[in-house]
Amino acid sequence: MSLIVQKYGGSSVSDAESIKRVAKRIVETRKAGNDVVVAVSAMGDTTDELLDLAHEVTPIPAPRELDMLLTAGERISMALLAMAIKSMGYDARSFTGSQAGMITDAQHGAARIVDVTPGRLSEALSQGAIVIVAGFQGFNRDTKDITTLGRGGSDTTAVALAAALDADVCEIYTDVDGVFTSDPRVVPLARKIDRITSEEMLELAAAGAKVLYIRAVEYARRHGVTLHVRSSFNNNEGTIVYNPEAGIPAELGRNGVEVEEPIIAGIAADLSEAKITVVGVPDIPGKAAQIFKIVAKTNSNVDMIVQNVSAAVSGLTDISFTLPKSEGQIVLTALTAEQDAVGFQSLQYDDQIGKLALVGAGMRTNTGVSAKLFEALYEAGINIEMISTSEIRISVVTRADTINDAVRVVHTAFGLDADEVAKVHGGTGR
Amino acid sequence: MSLIVQKYGGSSVSDAESIKRVAKRIVETRKAGNDVVVAVSAMGDTTDELLDLAHEVTPIPAPRELDMLLTAGERISMALLAMAIKSMGYDARSFTGSQAGMITDAQHGAARIVDVTPGRLSEALSQGAIVIVAGFQGFNRDTKDITTLGRGGSDTTAVALAAALDADVCEIYTDVDGVFTSDPRVVPLARKIDRITSEEMLELAAAGAKVLYIRAVEYARRHGVTLHVRSSFNNNEGTIVYNPEAGIPAELGRNGVEVEEPIIAGIAADLSEAKITVVGVPDIPGKAAQIFKIVAKTNSNVDMIVQNVSAAVSGLTDISFTLPKSEGQIVLTALTAEQDAVGFQSLQYDDQIGKLALVGAGMRTNTGVSAKLFEALYEAGINIEMISTSEIRISVVTRADTINDAVRVVHTAFGLDADEVAKVHGGTGR
Repeated sequence: MSLIVQKYGGSSVSDAESIKRVAKRIVETRKAGNDVVVAVSAMGDTTDELLDLAHEVTPIPAPRELDMLLTAGERISMALLAMAIKSMGYDARSFTGSQAGMITDAQHGAARIVDVTPGRLSEALSQGAIVIVAGFQGFNRDTKDITTLGRGGSDTTAVALAAALDADVCEIYTDVDGVFTSDPRVVPLARKIDRITSEEMLELAAAGAKVLYIRAVEYARRHGVTLHVRSSFNNNEGTIVYNPEAGIPAELGRNGVEVEEPIIAGIAADLSEAKITVVGVPDIPGKAAQIFKIVAKTNSNVDMIVQNVSAAVSGLTDISFTLPKSEGQIVLTALTAEQDAVGFQSLQYDDQIGKLALVGAGMRTNTGVSAKLFEALYEAGINIEMISTSEIRISVVTRADTINDAVRVVHTAFGLDADEVAKVHGGTGR
Repeated sequence: MSLIVQKYGGSSVSDAESIKRVAKRIVETRKAGNDVVVAVSAMGDTTDELLDLAHEVTPIPAPRELDMLLTAGERISMALLAMAIKSMGYDARSFTGSQAGMITDAQHGAARIVDVTPGRLSEALSQGAIVIVAGFQGFNRDTKDITTLGRGGSDTTAVALAAALDADVCEIYTDVDGVFTSDPRVVPLARKIDRITSEEMLELAAAGAKVLYIRAVEYARRHGVTLHVRSSFNNNEGTIVYNPEAGIPAELGRNGVEVEEPIIAGIAADLSEAKITVVGVPDIPGKAAQIFKIVAKTNSNVDMIVQNVSAAVSGLTDISFTLPKSEGQIVLTALTAEQDAVGFQSLQYDDQIGKLALVGAGMRTNTGVSAKLFEALYEAGINIEMISTSEIRISVVTRADTINDAVRVVHTAFGLDADEVAKVHGGTGR
């Protein structure tokens, strides 16, 4: 008997009908002889509606109370899902984050999981019940207060439960068929990826692929949880995200069929970032550290950093970095306040950039990947403004309005195009 | 410094605006130098909407999961109320029934409070915070499951908190100005009652007065909690419900002004009951006990019981009783199944009855109250079908279509009519 953790996002449980459909799928998994634990998000737009309500009451809701409010969302969906399953003749019990033992730190709105004590879940499983857990929420032991995990929280809940209960697989149900080589809305010939390493998935998620949240992938990688990203609208196999050292579990039926790893797993594009250039920085040791200490104090999420070749003559250099557009203003303000101390000449802000990331473990051992990437962009007349590489990823920054073309030509250049156009649905969960 | 418990029903917190209005009132109570604990119901129609959703999923929702679902309602209202208060510069913290220490038995949907352990509330109060508690909900220690208290649960939550925290007064905010001598929608000249004993209030509530739930009044009476029923739409004094042995607390400013108690406190009417008559019961000892043992097994709430004068010749008698219409069918079925064992001839069912109850502690020492009542009804041409009396209440059953006339003529006969027509709002909380 296997233990399967399943996660259903808000778009999979948006009304009574879809809740019944999900309940049926869960019961089928149970019938097949598996223990089942389900992490569920709030129904459809519930979270946004609750947020709107809070903002009608006060422009800046108190974080503790906002978490108390938002956690009502999963409470509703999990109770409805449990009663739907029970009405099909199978035992089911719903548990809040607190009841499920999701222990977090006290950072309301973006709490981190520090421990999982799923005693009540194990007990319910041993009594033959299907376990339904509220995604996105936890509990702090010191303050005894309810917390929420922030964006992608339900994915993280599912992965943390899978790790704590030593589940065989964690199935992430979504409204697309799996992880694609690129966004099918941009690249019509994008292909569903059958399997991908957690490391590659992490890079793709970090580079803007929306289907999985980076936190959940990181948690899965660290705890050796195998993910199966698949659609809740059909029974197709989705994408297996696995740890190459541990291999793919036998239950997933892929062992023994050793296929050659593709060089490139996928291509992600991201239009949510802006570029700040610090112009005319004295080219002496310690200046970069000084700048990024100022930036770090704003808690900004800096992504790519590029320092241009030193201008030997002037003794000055330029340092550029990208960060989420939403954080641009606060970082500009912080840097301006320290302009004299650092001694730079000026700041440039550019929010019309696009970032393309090419991800694949195969590039470790395959030379010429960067050259092929740059050539494809050159042939399409697309100018590269920044380049940054990691072991399994190459990122380039272009103008925002060329990014979709860039993704398409690179997708074709690396032989990722499918024979036919991908079918896609819309929407995302949380 | 006084400790005041306030309860706000769903109609007082139906949207963001009304939540802000209630928050302001709470802050004013705090500013006046009081510690404040608030029990709040779910917003407006939230509970009904959640119930509808449950019934879309399954015709018979599992009770544990239904409680999990419904408790989301107060979670939303209490969090919004707490953040509204915090935005006004006062500290406020919301607590679920479980966090507030409302320990109940395990009867989902109609749980009874067995203990209140308000340690977290006392701690928050000692730190100067205003405490907001979810009404209607509790927690069972054995199953560790969330429970709900059933109808009138939020009133009961408020009274139980007032008792456990030894509050000076428990203010029940509603959408009317207090308890009236009769329903102002039926009797336009009904008067607001300034003060009423808990015993009288209990009889009025039991007889159908909707403004307070019988459970909450009973809890208040047993634990010596003084209630103040008042409107959340103005600052008028409402109705004080007090224990005559303890007197009215000095804070409520009524001591020293000894007024003569009116003979009659109020008149309630109830159209929700039906009458069952067991016809032709052998007039031998033990038959009534046999019949009501059968009825008791159905958990039905029998109200009035009348046995007609024995018919000496036939050796048979008739026994009539009233009960909620909703319980009529199950009791008829139970009695029919035992017809041969009991030996009665037939059953009659009548759901076109109305019940009028005249309540007043003064009737203990005033003769002639029944006579005056019967005379007023006779003069109005209203026929009395059943009579039942307790120490401070007289109830009569009439035809349903005459009940409103009956209430009006009795209200006038006992000198309860006000000089002017009462102003009323609509709606009730839970």
